[in-house]
Amino acid sequence: MLSLIVKAGGPGSFVVWQTIFNRLMPELTVIDWHDKTADLASIDYAFVWQPEPGRLAQMPRLKAILSVAAGVDHILTDPDLPANLPVIRMGGEDTAAQMQDYVRWAVFSLLREAPRWHSAQHKQIWARQGVPPVRLSSETPVGIMGLGALGSAVAQSLVQAGFPVVGWSQHKKSYDHITSYAGTAELETFLRSCSILVCLLPETSLTRGIITCDVLKQLQKPAGLINVGRGRLVVTSDLLRALDDGTLHNAVLDVFEHEPLPAESPLWSHPGVLITPHVASEASRTARAGYVVGVIRAFERGEDVPLRYDPQKGY
Amino acid sequence: MLSLIVKAGGPGSFVVWQTIFNRLMPELTVIDWHDKTADLASIDYAFVWQPEPGRLAQMPRLKAILSVAAGVDHILTDPDLPANLPVIRMGGEDTAAQMQDYVRWAVFSLLREAPRWHSAQHKQIWARQGVPPVRLSSETPVGIMGLGALGSAVAQSLVQAGFPVVGWSQHKKSYDHITSYAGTAELETFLRSCSILVCLLPETSLTRGIITCDVLKQLQKPAGLINVGRGRLVVTSDLLRALDDGTLHNAVLDVFEHEPLPAESPLWSHPGVLITPHVASEASRTARAGYVVGVIRAFERGEDVPLRYDPQKGY
Repeated sequence: MLSLIVKAGGPGSFVVWQTIFNRLMPELTVIDWHDKTADLASIDYAFVWQPEPGRLAQMPRLKAILSVAAGVDHILTDPDLPANLPVIRMGGEDTAAQMQDYVRWAVFSLLREAPRWHSAQHKQIWARQGVPPVRLSSETPVGIMGLGALGSAVAQSLVQAGFPVVGWSQHKKSYDHITSYAGTAELETFLRSCSILVCLLPETSLTRGIITCDVLKQLQKPAGLINVGRGRLVVTSDLLRALDDGTLHNAVLDVFEHEPLPAESPLWSHPGVLITPHVASEASRTARAGYVVGVIRAFERGEDVPLRYDPQKGY
Repeated sequence: MLSLIVKAGGPGSFVVWQTIFNRLMPELTVIDWHDKTADLASIDYAFVWQPEPGRLAQMPRLKAILSVAAGVDHILTDPDLPANLPVIRMGGEDTAAQMQDYVRWAVFSLLREAPRWHSAQHKQIWARQGVPPVRLSSETPVGIMGLGALGSAVAQSLVQAGFPVVGWSQHKKSYDHITSYAGTAELETFLRSCSILVCLLPETSLTRGIITCDVLKQLQKPAGLINVGRGRLVVTSDLLRALDDGTLHNAVLDVFEHEPLPAESPLWSHPGVLITPHVASEASRTARAGYVVGVIRAFERGEDVPLRYDPQKGY
């Protein structure tokens, strides 16, 4: 008998997850992370978001840890995380399809000055005066930082929409119609070749704080930033400075250094900024449970699992 | 010697237009509509937006009237408009490309609940609770009302973005991957087959007030409306009622019954509505002047001109 412990979406969500898992894989025993009487010695798999440090180490039979989200940084911060245990990132078609839709919304929003129109609407101003000339999608290069499973799917959807697309990643990738740059040596060339920057990097020791004023300065004007990776990829004070001095024309932000975004953050009311509450890509519970079941079955058959955390790469 | 009279963008804009036309077609004499001393008997062509009624009738040599915009309703309201004189709608690649970008922005905005996020941002609320499940572009059918030069270009760009697309027009059209309906008899079937409705119709006696509560009721839920045609296509009181009672989930509006949108309109602050000030497609002056010069040259060669107003069709 296989068992899965679940910490995803707060205590009230457990029953929903249990129902879905029971339907998809009836032979799986599903255990609530918040159940203090659970027999931790019996657990085979954990499906978690921000697990309390030390608890995973109390599960001696654990075979793998599956992340509720595409990033695994919320698991790796556990100092007692069992070494050598596979950690698997969330994936699947639904996750990628949602990210493609969100980023296309965000890119078109910056292209067509949506922050400007929302500010004007809020002030009830018919703001036709002094509008900058409209740019076309076909003449506005978009740069994707992070060309992994999500980044490459997003890049391809933007190519299809007619944007010129460039990409940057740790190691050089090869995709049709996407100019690809890699490593620190090519970062500047990459940045100079795009006007809207989409940050889809994982958070690692190499990427934390990578988006600084100096980085934003190198983008083509008018420069836009879309952050759908992690909040800590961006130096928040630099972001604010770049927005205020015009280095950065506008931005769409879905992730933040501190979430929920604190009430006192000046980002909330910045006229060049659109904010969403970390909703860019959250596949349905059914889609995510299906992905988890697929991973468990592959594991049990002794097969390789694609989105496995690699300590060498840091994600 | 050919001459063109220009009324586009207010008296201050004339010098800019003149400079552009002088560059593109030096042999053309460019005359300011607001110049009271102009010899109206010498004018060959008029390039106008909302010409004062009666003035075009004072130009005996006039060969054609060119509209500054895609619609010609602002010219046809002149009761003294010389009969049988060709009236030409604005067109060209830039106009279509801008409309494609705007509508893609608008469709992705409704798909991804942008009005909801903007309202939440304005109130500084991290509104993750009670968010409706995310729909994917691939499962959200978009309906285009009006499959002319602009409508068909827009429809094709949405097909490319992965949306299921249906179209409706006066006469049946045939485009790849677009299910096309025509006429009053097929309107209901068309409406029932889409969730986001894009209104790109010209304003004629047949289309004025076509968007009513009854029409909006037939859309798949959650229903969205994008109006980039003319404000008077929509019955404003019906639109407000549909938004308030949930018949219509959200809307992006670029055109209004009265423009600028009056300060007292409840649309400004409706949480389901995004407003832009009639900016969906406004090609650069250079692009529009280039189009005008192309039309004049074709006329002088005795060639047919594509976007000519047809009194039978009403646009």
